[in-house]
Amino acid sequence: MAYFDNNATTPPREVALRAHEVALREDWRNPSSPTIVAARVRAKLEKTREELAAFLGCAAGSLCFTSGATEANNAVFAHLARKATDDQRVLLSPTEHPSVREAANRYFPGRVKQLSVNGSGVVSSQEASQTLTDGSYAAVSVMAANNETGVLQPWSELASLCAERGVAYHCDATQWIGKLPIDGLSECDYLTASAHKFGGLKGIGILKAPEDFSFIVGGEQESGRRAGTENYPAIASMLAALRESLENDQARVLEKARNAFEQRLIESFSGIRIVGAEVNRLWNTSSLLMPDFDNLRWVGKLEKLGHEISTGSACSSGIESESSVAVALGLTVVEARRIVRVSGSFDTLPGDWEDLAEAFLLAHQELSAGSGSLEVVSV
Amino acid sequence: MAYFDNNATTPPREVALRAHEVALREDWRNPSSPTIVAARVRAKLEKTREELAAFLGCAAGSLCFTSGATEANNAVFAHLARKATDDQRVLLSPTEHPSVREAANRYFPGRVKQLSVNGSGVVSSQEASQTLTDGSYAAVSVMAANNETGVLQPWSELASLCAERGVAYHCDATQWIGKLPIDGLSECDYLTASAHKFGGLKGIGILKAPEDFSFIVGGEQESGRRAGTENYPAIASMLAALRESLENDQARVLEKARNAFEQRLIESFSGIRIVGAEVNRLWNTSSLLMPDFDNLRWVGKLEKLGHEISTGSACSSGIESESSVAVALGLTVVEARRIVRVSGSFDTLPGDWEDLAEAFLLAHQELSAGSGSLEVVSV
Repeated sequence: MAYFDNNATTPPREVALRAHEVALREDWRNPSSPTIVAARVRAKLEKTREELAAFLGCAAGSLCFTSGATEANNAVFAHLARKATDDQRVLLSPTEHPSVREAANRYFPGRVKQLSVNGSGVVSSQEASQTLTDGSYAAVSVMAANNETGVLQPWSELASLCAERGVAYHCDATQWIGKLPIDGLSECDYLTASAHKFGGLKGIGILKAPEDFSFIVGGEQESGRRAGTENYPAIASMLAALRESLENDQARVLEKARNAFEQRLIESFSGIRIVGAEVNRLWNTSSLLMPDFDNLRWVGKLEKLGHEISTGSACSSGIESESSVAVALGLTVVEARRIVRVSGSFDTLPGDWEDLAEAFLLAHQELSAGSGSLEVVSV
Repeated sequence: MAYFDNNATTPPREVALRAHEVALREDWRNPSSPTIVAARVRAKLEKTREELAAFLGCAAGSLCFTSGATEANNAVFAHLARKATDDQRVLLSPTEHPSVREAANRYFPGRVKQLSVNGSGVVSSQEASQTLTDGSYAAVSVMAANNETGVLQPWSELASLCAERGVAYHCDATQWIGKLPIDGLSECDYLTASAHKFGGLKGIGILKAPEDFSFIVGGEQESGRRAGTENYPAIASMLAALRESLENDQARVLEKARNAFEQRLIESFSGIRIVGAEVNRLWNTSSLLMPDFDNLRWVGKLEKLGHEISTGSACSSGIESESSVAVALGLTVVEARRIVRVSGSFDTLPGDWEDLAEAFLLAHQELSAGSGSLEVVSV
């Protein structure tokens, strides 16, 4: 199978598997135990934090480890709400991941304002600037790169703007980290990411947050910011995966291959639309609004042909609910049902993209041959 | 090294490592992805949930997976608080894990009432019954087995009592699960545990909770009760570890070995006290109030002699804060500093307990020989 669903999750990298296995055998002790052997695990944990901090360009003390970006996004809004006054609001992009949107709504009920987006789903920092002038905002949360479309948001501008205005800025960088350079991300006051999106394991992630942060309480781990026995093996494995991702210099080559794939589809399918093609996007993602057929039929047909792709996001695709990204882009329900997402990785070679384009053509033939009786567009 | 710090964390069992490795290679996909190969991971995840539910004697739908007991304990109080009225209280034992006590204080500020305990740290269900008569309680939280002393609480009586009174009952079963039979635990409305206490990996745990539960939001995973990509490899590994723990029938033999160890120490050290010796305890734990020397000196000396033991709990030991258990037991600060914790596992053989007793004797000789100039009891 050719795997094109890397924005949902990535296969663990070999270096991550090896680092995990070694740590499980050697460094499984509780870093808080009072023995010297346990203190060695604590020392390795802190060394890992320092290396991650160096990659991000921030102080090691500003980083803590969580079970992943979903926990971290929840934690950010819970924390912001505890610090905010009862009438302060938060400002989001409408294309945030559900773990940002729902957490914002839970902790700032009735006090969540959405920015508008252009036709590609990009927010405007000018609009954000104007919105913040009324002084009622505790925080702004705009992701670095969109999980469904790969579209990049102006997070660096927003971070500067928020710093000027004294408003906290949170950036969900889950899809950015592991694909693009990360050194500037430390400008963001709150930063969240998950290891399993860049070849690490599930169940571990990074949170950059102020020192007074706390969400899960009841232990002095992570300087009191995140209680619970530290999962050093998963943390070591995350660093190994990130290090290898950052060393990879093939993004430009792979972006060309992705673009050639899109070009081939544009030439083959009249009426196809590449979402976000007009703006800066991740090099690995194609969000395709297909001219025909329900996206689940594309997914099924392509899987039979040996290619794993997806509908919108994994979070909403499996359960058939509507994507907020589709809503923000102004798509109709029928159009939203025709969106397929293709997401490669550093291991996706140019030839894989070529093969995928051919598979789309073959899938279309087969879907067309079988249509009439089989075509069902459920609304 | 002979490892006697299993209440802090356990080395992963071989079956857990193997199950994890296989799942990382075969079942790493996002269970929410719309492909058939991803649906197979979802099916395996649900099968695992069913098997765990069968062990616990509850409906599969009542179980969800979290990053561990600390998250789950926080989640329970956050959820209870959302459902409770503003004046409802919670009733705890004073020997709860910090993740229960601190979460209770965070979500029920000023509305946490503590039960008293006897000299062994056991609560009285009669007292609980009387306390609940005033009708102001939303929930009772009393753990199954104490992490520092191994003392068992009357959780089954408390579960029945709470059911009669229509009060929610939460039981932190972190130290019970994997050591004692678990089928009755499903009587508890909320049940929390961590895999790494019974030979599974860190970063994964079990939560039994009502269907309307939610803490981490933003995804339909776990029926909406716990958002975030499911960590199937860790879940599969947890089941393998639990299954093997439950099959082990050596608890009685090992309890005798632990008791013989304690007897040897009682005969050797006048003034030693075994905390909880008068009541039902876990078969693996000894909480020893030593007649002399700061507990960190015992830990250090025994480690040099090849035996890893601990002070109170790992959560508080490394960071030198005072244990709430010591406070509840009415120990003085100096006494609390003389508590050492020894916690074996199914892999701790009777001969290991004998060797440990001899090591305590040797350690005492060496500590005594070096005392005078070296003895420091910091207060």
